[in-house]
Amino acid sequence: MKTTAGGLAAPLGFKSAGAYCGIKRKRNDIALIVSDRDAVAAGVFTQNIVRASCVTANSALLPSTTMRAIVVNSGNANACNGEAGDRDNELMAQFAAESIGVGRGQIFSASTGIIGAAMPMEKVEAGIRLAATKLQDENSDAAAEAIMTTDTFPKQFAVELTVGGVQVKIGAIAKGSGMIAPNMATMLCFIVTDAAIDQAVLQEMLSRCVWYTFNSITVDGDTSTNDMVLILAKGAAGNKPITGLDTQDAAVFETALYNVCLHLAKEVVRDGEGATKLVSVTVKNVAPPKALEDAYVASGRDLTKEQRASFARSVAKTIANSPLVKTALFGNDPNWGRILAAAGRSGVQFDQSAIEISLAGHPVYSNGQPTDFDHDMLSKSMSGNELAITIDMHQLGGEQATVWTCDFSYEYVKINAEYHT
Amino acid sequence: MKTTAGGLAAPLGFKSAGAYCGIKRKRNDIALIVSDRDAVAAGVFTQNIVRASCVTANSALLPSTTMRAIVVNSGNANACNGEAGDRDNELMAQFAAESIGVGRGQIFSASTGIIGAAMPMEKVEAGIRLAATKLQDENSDAAAEAIMTTDTFPKQFAVELTVGGVQVKIGAIAKGSGMIAPNMATMLCFIVTDAAIDQAVLQEMLSRCVWYTFNSITVDGDTSTNDMVLILAKGAAGNKPITGLDTQDAAVFETALYNVCLHLAKEVVRDGEGATKLVSVTVKNVAPPKALEDAYVASGRDLTKEQRASFARSVAKTIANSPLVKTALFGNDPNWGRILAAAGRSGVQFDQSAIEISLAGHPVYSNGQPTDFDHDMLSKSMSGNELAITIDMHQLGGEQATVWTCDFSYEYVKINAEYHT
Repeated sequence: MKTTAGGLAAPLGFKSAGAYCGIKRKRNDIALIVSDRDAVAAGVFTQNIVRASCVTANSALLPSTTMRAIVVNSGNANACNGEAGDRDNELMAQFAAESIGVGRGQIFSASTGIIGAAMPMEKVEAGIRLAATKLQDENSDAAAEAIMTTDTFPKQFAVELTVGGVQVKIGAIAKGSGMIAPNMATMLCFIVTDAAIDQAVLQEMLSRCVWYTFNSITVDGDTSTNDMVLILAKGAAGNKPITGLDTQDAAVFETALYNVCLHLAKEVVRDGEGATKLVSVTVKNVAPPKALEDAYVASGRDLTKEQRASFARSVAKTIANSPLVKTALFGNDPNWGRILAAAGRSGVQFDQSAIEISLAGHPVYSNGQPTDFDHDMLSKSMSGNELAITIDMHQLGGEQATVWTCDFSYEYVKINAEYHT
Repeated sequence: MKTTAGGLAAPLGFKSAGAYCGIKRKRNDIALIVSDRDAVAAGVFTQNIVRASCVTANSALLPSTTMRAIVVNSGNANACNGEAGDRDNELMAQFAAESIGVGRGQIFSASTGIIGAAMPMEKVEAGIRLAATKLQDENSDAAAEAIMTTDTFPKQFAVELTVGGVQVKIGAIAKGSGMIAPNMATMLCFIVTDAAIDQAVLQEMLSRCVWYTFNSITVDGDTSTNDMVLILAKGAAGNKPITGLDTQDAAVFETALYNVCLHLAKEVVRDGEGATKLVSVTVKNVAPPKALEDAYVASGRDLTKEQRASFARSVAKTIANSPLVKTALFGNDPNWGRILAAAGRSGVQFDQSAIEISLAGHPVYSNGQPTDFDHDMLSKSMSGNELAITIDMHQLGGEQATVWTCDFSYEYVKINAEYHT
């Protein structure tokens, strides 16, 4: 697998466009992604029970093997708008379907931006029809820009890999950068591939990849009403279709998909509101509670790898969301006490005397007490734009998980306090 | 019940003192609270599994009917210091016991401040012995000051009430103001009363009062390793002892104790790091999940009032801890979308179309959509130093809960990023 250019345009047979319709003041605010024939589709959606109209509508379309396009607007989340919101979302999909000449049931829709503002449907309709005239397969620069909200740079990525001797490509665009509106944010990612693959296999792979990537990042812990990751796969590459999870081809494809998701997930965090650094929090060797394992064994089942790793991820998420940890990171303060205290309230049991904490590769806590580290030197080595925090719980039979977060700066407060609807 | 002067000195037979020993640069850092005879004692401790030495030691002393004193230092949390920390905590209690001539088992200890720094025991010993020479029963100003860390004002309160025709008093001191060190914070509260009351009754009342007060506040969601609320009751008032929870006397006393806890809990939030306003988040009419109620009914038990209210409190806590909600509050932004989105990720089920949200008494969301409110006028009425947020879920058989929080300002980031250990 290697990276390649073109974003969404890298795989064969996908076109995209960006257009300006006036929801936002200046930048493009409508994106269209179109497959030239029916595509197998899978999706993962926000776990917030308050869901935007587009999330509900897209969920109802899955599973599908006949999807043709994704229409997206930025600047308005079309969330919490009641029946009017559902109607506007439906219209948006219909305008897209008409513009490209396919059925409404072949269109995914997505919105990101302010919650609770009415959609300016005349503008949206004009924007979608304009975007349809701009579709091209050279690159996805315009589409990647058109889905941005508080993002400071567009996010796209593509890889090529070999599946059963055939070259296959995966391309994607994504946006961040806080978790919810009305500071105009929401995590969205759209992926396309020319690989041939079964829908159920694609859905399972996407769910697993998202667990380790987009569901393992946090900017502020606030889950959006609009979050979604969608993938379209249409088989133009001509590989022998991937029909199961356990083949060599499946492993190669899933690894590539994971890498696409991981790259873009980290880009979202790197561009988190006010962020000055990308921080990985890796928690190692955390075992599931014995009672849970026993209950599974007794019922003849096994915990999945993700279930086993979820305890390590809970610890990592609690640390990654702690305002005290995040402000310390902004200040380059090697404050292991805040990390340990956050771990202690995560709900996961551990032995305080067995835990080891490292910052930027330097051990700061072990054997139940701080190490004799040089504060100023360590602070200096924390001052770059990437930082690794590692916590080892040393539990037998344990799993590990990594969560990516950013620091908490004056700029975050400024962006989120001074914006007015 | 009415408020009265004197703090810890209001009830009969309690003395207190504050002294300077040099853990902190300038301010008093040792407090001593002494009962002139054996007192019934109860306590509530941090739920963090990383616990300071003082928390572990105090828990082991309860239940007790023979406590005599509480010794406290600020500036050093004596947490995560391994066996040396346990030894230093033990020494601290012993110095206090010797200084006032009682047994070590009659002393509670408490520490607040930096996590993971060694305790300067020579200074601490001198400070405790000095404090013992300064004990007086005029007021508790010096003790209230000596337990402060990043607090900007001392917190004390006292009430008088009539129990069975006899005048009884409750006095207390507390400190905030972030949740954990090393920015030198931790929530501590020490309460004394001259009422005569059984230990088990006192413990149950304290636990219930703390549930609704100190366990219903948040500054940043970070649970300290050192949090504790202790109460000493010694019966000098001469009331007929309170021996059960269901009498008129018990109800009067518990209400007064609740009011003391509530007053100080709100003071802690009002003085939260960087806070510009005290915000109450009240969530009404949230019913427990039907499956849980059915399981209780099937087993012949009832959910307690607190268990029933815990679902409303979960929603309120998720809102109260959301960085996006808290930054919007700092900016006086009537941002109901962030409130609703936070509620949606709280884990509690509700119907989005039945929910009502009010800010400062003005409805902003109902019937599944925003109301037609005047943004600028509402923003203006949010700009005071107190604000009420109300969410009504309209679920049959539901309970309500209130959580108190503060806003999230530049100053919070400054305090927590620029401090270095």
